[in-house]
Amino acid sequence: MQTVWINGGFVPSDKAIDASDRGFLLGDGLFDTALAINGVVFRGKQHVARLTAALELLEIPVDTAEIEAAMTALAERQVYGSIRLTVTRGPGVRGLKLPPEPTPLLLGSSAPLTPSLMFAPIRCALADVRRNETSPLSRIKTVGYLDAILASRKAEREGASEALFLNSKGAVACSSLGNIFVAEGMDLATPPLKDGVLPGITRGWVIEHAEDFGLRPIERSVAPKSLNLAEGLFLTNSLRLITPMTLSGKADSADIPEAVQQLMVGLCEAIARECGKDPRDLGAKLPG
Amino acid sequence: MQTVWINGGFVPSDKAIDASDRGFLLGDGLFDTALAINGVVFRGKQHVARLTAALELLEIPVDTAEIEAAMTALAERQVYGSIRLTVTRGPGVRGLKLPPEPTPLLLGSSAPLTPSLMFAPIRCALADVRRNETSPLSRIKTVGYLDAILASRKAEREGASEALFLNSKGAVACSSLGNIFVAEGMDLATPPLKDGVLPGITRGWVIEHAEDFGLRPIERSVAPKSLNLAEGLFLTNSLRLITPMTLSGKADSADIPEAVQQLMVGLCEAIARECGKDPRDLGAKLPG
Repeated sequence: MQTVWINGGFVPSDKAIDASDRGFLLGDGLFDTALAINGVVFRGKQHVARLTAALELLEIPVDTAEIEAAMTALAERQVYGSIRLTVTRGPGVRGLKLPPEPTPLLLGSSAPLTPSLMFAPIRCALADVRRNETSPLSRIKTVGYLDAILASRKAEREGASEALFLNSKGAVACSSLGNIFVAEGMDLATPPLKDGVLPGITRGWVIEHAEDFGLRPIERSVAPKSLNLAEGLFLTNSLRLITPMTLSGKADSADIPEAVQQLMVGLCEAIARECGKDPRDLGAKLPG
Repeated sequence: MQTVWINGGFVPSDKAIDASDRGFLLGDGLFDTALAINGVVFRGKQHVARLTAALELLEIPVDTAEIEAAMTALAERQVYGSIRLTVTRGPGVRGLKLPPEPTPLLLGSSAPLTPSLMFAPIRCALADVRRNETSPLSRIKTVGYLDAILASRKAEREGASEALFLNSKGAVACSSLGNIFVAEGMDLATPPLKDGVLPGITRGWVIEHAEDFGLRPIERSVAPKSLNLAEGLFLTNSLRLITPMTLSGKADSADIPEAVQQLMVGLCEAIARECGKDPRDLGAKLPG
């Protein structure tokens, strides 16, 4: 029997959620996915800070201490894996109006590590659906992933493994599961949040540390045509880390500039420093 | 103890949903809300047809007979009220990929009738967020209502009761809870589905029957400025039916052309014919 963490303890997964939960009925909730290595959540502080900022935006009152307790309990149990925290506004009566005294739901679950996905090159297909940067929801990790599900499904049919979204203005936004970076010479460009992207935790690490590897991180709008001209493209994601990406040809034809290879090594070393274990020792393979 | 219909029978509402349900985790589901009068769902056939078409689009396999059984059971139990059916893709493992053998969840719930909301004029405020007509989800009733929740919250703060959305091209789309119609002389304009609106069941009734009241229904894009020039505006919704609407001033200052008043009477009579009871006999009051 699978168990999940709910509001302070582990309970059976089936029949865990109230049918009047607004997360279930109205998509009124958000989540966070983090990497646990050696019982430690990598960049746990940043994950908690991002989740609490998003909860504040949605006016969902949850104590930061509760979030930290859930994360710790899950990482201790899973040791090596992914940790997902889902927070909803909790049960509500009919209608959109916020409940005057909400009782939010904090759900935590975990899954085993899949090191083979780390750094593994992928091919993306361009999505027909645009990402709606006019909505603040484009910048927080809400449970609303149905556009991404449909776009991934279509990408799969086209022989790709993931969808790449433009926003409603036609600028590159992100893939269904990660942020995008474009390497041109020593410049490392990534779309700014206003273009409708999540403040990804690995995105944040890359922006913070790119200069250590001779790269210049720049947050700026990215035109679709610049993707074809780039020396290298990659996606970032908390579980898959840094994945080289191509829009045409096979996944493993993705170009990986030398400095980006060094960036991947640097991320492995950062994880080893923070968690006490290098992902490469767990089976993660750097490409190239 | 509240009970809900799940996959064929009534069960307690709390702890009804599996924590791995993709509707809960990823917004991978949709719903329908219908009016039950005298134990009969008004335009039940149209509600079932819309829901099954949307399920087909999402590749969620549910028998139409199961949907009909849920609707009938809920209408028999509630007699006068609103019936909500929620269908999700059911439990899934991590990730966006569709489960190869999905076991969808069909959840039904009901709530008592609030006849005071029927035909009651409302004031809308323009939303900052645009409706994303590039997504097929803008045309089906997914559980993703968080944009609408936030926009309604902002509208409330501005003294309005609901938000009106433009789409990403700047055309009028719909309100947070209903379709919009614009009356100009005998013309009754409403945005086409491609502008990012739901094929509302009451919208459908109005388009089908407007001519009986001397009105000409036209599906065409609506410019925001035309709202100020219109002789009358109204929203349609399965529970509130036809509600006069204004963007400025008090709700009850909404203009209601004579032909639209006749349309409201006609809708009451249609409900009486189909369900055996006129909403006016249950407390619904026509404005004006």
